[in-house]
Amino acid sequence: MTLLTDYGPHSEYVGALHAVLVGADPGIVRVDLAHDIAAGDVRLGAVILARLVVQLPHAVHLAVVDPGVGSGRRGLAVRLSGGGALVGPDNGLLGLAARELAAVEAVVLPPARGNAATFDGRDVFAPAAAQLALGANLEDLGTQVEVAGIRVPEIPGAQLRPGELVAAILGSDRFGNVQLAASAADVAATGLAIGQEVMITAPDARAHGHVAQTFGDVAAGALAVYLDSHGLVAIAERGGDAAARLGIRGGGSLRISVTPTPTP
Amino acid sequence: MTLLTDYGPHSEYVGALHAVLVGADPGIVRVDLAHDIAAGDVRLGAVILARLVVQLPHAVHLAVVDPGVGSGRRGLAVRLSGGGALVGPDNGLLGLAARELAAVEAVVLPPARGNAATFDGRDVFAPAAAQLALGANLEDLGTQVEVAGIRVPEIPGAQLRPGELVAAILGSDRFGNVQLAASAADVAATGLAIGQEVMITAPDARAHGHVAQTFGDVAAGALAVYLDSHGLVAIAERGGDAAARLGIRGGGSLRISVTPTPTP
Amino acid sequence: MTLLTDYGPHSEYVGALHAVLVGADPGIVRVDLAHDIAAGDVRLGAVILARLVVQLPHAVHLAVVDPGVGSGRRGLAVRLSGGGALVGPDNGLLGLAARELAAVEAVVLPPARGNAATFDGRDVFAPAAAQLALGANLEDLGTQVEVAGIRVPEIPGAQLRPGELVAAILGSDRFGNVQLAASAADVAATGLAIGQEVMITAPDARAHGHVAQTFGDVAAGALAVYLDSHGLVAIAERGGDAAARLGIRGGGSLRISVTPTPTP
Repeated sequence: MTLLTDYGPHSEYVGALHAVLVGADPGIVRVDLAHDIAAGDVRLGAVILARLVVQLPHAVHLAVVDPGVGSGRRGLAVRLSGGGALVGPDNGLLGLAARELAAVEAVVLPPARGNAATFDGRDVFAPAAAQLALGANLEDLGTQVEVAGIRVPEIPGAQLRPGELVAAILGSDRFGNVQLAASAADVAATGLAIGQEVMITAPDARAHGHVAQTFGDVAAGALAVYLDSHGLVAIAERGGDAAARLGIRGGGSLRISVTPTPTP
Repeated sequence: MTLLTDYGPHSEYVGALHAVLVGADPGIVRVDLAHDIAAGDVRLGAVILARLVVQLPHAVHLAVVDPGVGSGRRGLAVRLSGGGALVGPDNGLLGLAARELAAVEAVVLPPARGNAATFDGRDVFAPAAAQLALGANLEDLGTQVEVAGIRVPEIPGAQLRPGELVAAILGSDRFGNVQLAASAADVAATGLAIGQEVMITAPDARAHGHVAQTFGDVAAGALAVYLDSHGLVAIAERGGDAAARLGIRGGGSLRISVTPTPTP
Repeated sequence: MTLLTDYGPHSEYVGALHAVLVGADPGIVRVDLAHDIAAGDVRLGAVILARLVVQLPHAVHLAVVDPGVGSGRRGLAVRLSGGGALVGPDNGLLGLAARELAAVEAVVLPPARGNAATFDGRDVFAPAAAQLALGANLEDLGTQVEVAGIRVPEIPGAQLRPGELVAAILGSDRFGNVQLAASAADVAATGLAIGQEVMITAPDARAHGHVAQTFGDVAAGALAVYLDSHGLVAIAERGGDAAARLGIRGGGSLRISVTPTPTP
């Protein structure tokens, strides 16, 4: 059983999920995938969930980033082709993981009994996930719905031109590395190549950098555009904080373009 | 075994507690209930502990929010009627949980040997909790004392008038939801009803809001006064941060009152 | 198996390490020692690792604070005399723990296949640690190297004079307690004694304090110079934040000296 939420590291809400799981069976193996997703950032949660679940394709994955709790969005449990499952709100959070691990069946979970819906993680999703981990059939948990109807997050595709790439900013991590919604194929399509100098234009700042294999390939304090450990385009400052340098506050898009040769 | 502290998420102090438990027996099932309690906030720790332990009434609960370590407050181990136990400082932290789960027996733990007392979590409480989890008798851990003497935190009761409720601010969470020391019964006693518009007066700011079933019932950006997932009165801003909007910095009390009809 | 990183509490990087371990064998007992080490602070990571591993000397310890990932530093697996092991980058992080638990054998781990090296924690160190936890021989993981060549972090020794101690600031914790690179023996060598009033001079501020057994021995709001739970010299403000009071921002050194008797 894995857990991914925006509840905050070691918050009482994370604790409440674990307590539900241990209450169901102390033998359930629990793996915290991430709980520091920015509050309500369904899109980033979906991206991170999709790339982590592939490490444990047979597990039940409980994911809750749920700004719409209490407003009528559906709750889902999804069976994956490899034998694993996803459980969480149908707001886009599960969509990329469901695609990555080939969802084969989905049910809508009934709402929590009694109380107002403010903590479906504890009251709906964790109990359902525990039941699945203990061998319950998906069909017994709710009403079947089309797998094709599972929502995916809206992530604008990268805009590509020769020598130029514009991509959505997905977020930045503790090290100030900025993650973009662009792949190795996107970079290849622009013709940008390792070693090339580029201008990086963020919503609020711009700076020079280099396309690199890894951030170890640029000088201390320099910006590297590289493929991160998930194959996505990222920007790092060696020994520094690229997000701070580029004034990234989340959201918007970022342009990487070959520095024009200065006119002689 | 559950753990609740103000040591900070994934801090070395939390790690040291886990190491004690695993060192005692790697088979002890460990559940982190919360480690992000504001440093030294015994009152909020007590409230959160009490509402989480009811999910696992048979477990040993290790709780340390202990601003008075090294100043002579007692350390306790407490047996609960359901078979579980509480272990931690007798500074109010255990009081609400002890009441909620009906404490039946308590012992004062001997101080740590040797060193100055600066890390009783590692040196006194975790070892005692591990022993209890492994089947030790409470009486073998220390000197019996009256259960009635277990300290409870001081939380001012809500002040109630027709159409008006004044309650202590317990704290706010990562989502900016503000938690108050007031119950559904308190709200009922004031006559405030779902749908009613109210004026919310915090120590440093005031704003309009509505009494609601859940925050999904108000418009985006509006404030909802609702009963949270533990049955306590809370204030949320839909899609926003109520604590920031109301200038909450912890402490003090907050007034919720029916907006006076403007004089014609 | 223990884990210590600077990845950030409950970040996806911590989750990825756990997923590797659980993917290798769900039965591996996992203990998070600390993940809130300041990003890239190898020295503080080394100090904290060394004092925590002694609690579990027989375990495999996976440690990653690795600002030099992607720049050619070696990765190591180290067998300890007590039966445990260390796995991580050879940048000083492992050096103090290797000394504390008497390293007996070391191998250099081969680099990750395929990708650029940006996440060796997931791709190199966690897999090696999992293999060791499951009984692999150290020699089968890489090329043997001299134990004596394991790097140790550079930590300046304390400068001692009668009535005066100057020590490197290692860091400060959530409670604002400041940790210094100085021991009980260092304090003894200066002649500073419990109860004595001292002047504490940090890089950006100075304040009076007292040498104390524990912070419970000084008045509320007063500064205590004491031996912390690991036997190192630390400074705390009772009921307050010594790091804030002394303007500590990490780095540099701090002087503790007997307050000169005012001239009459």
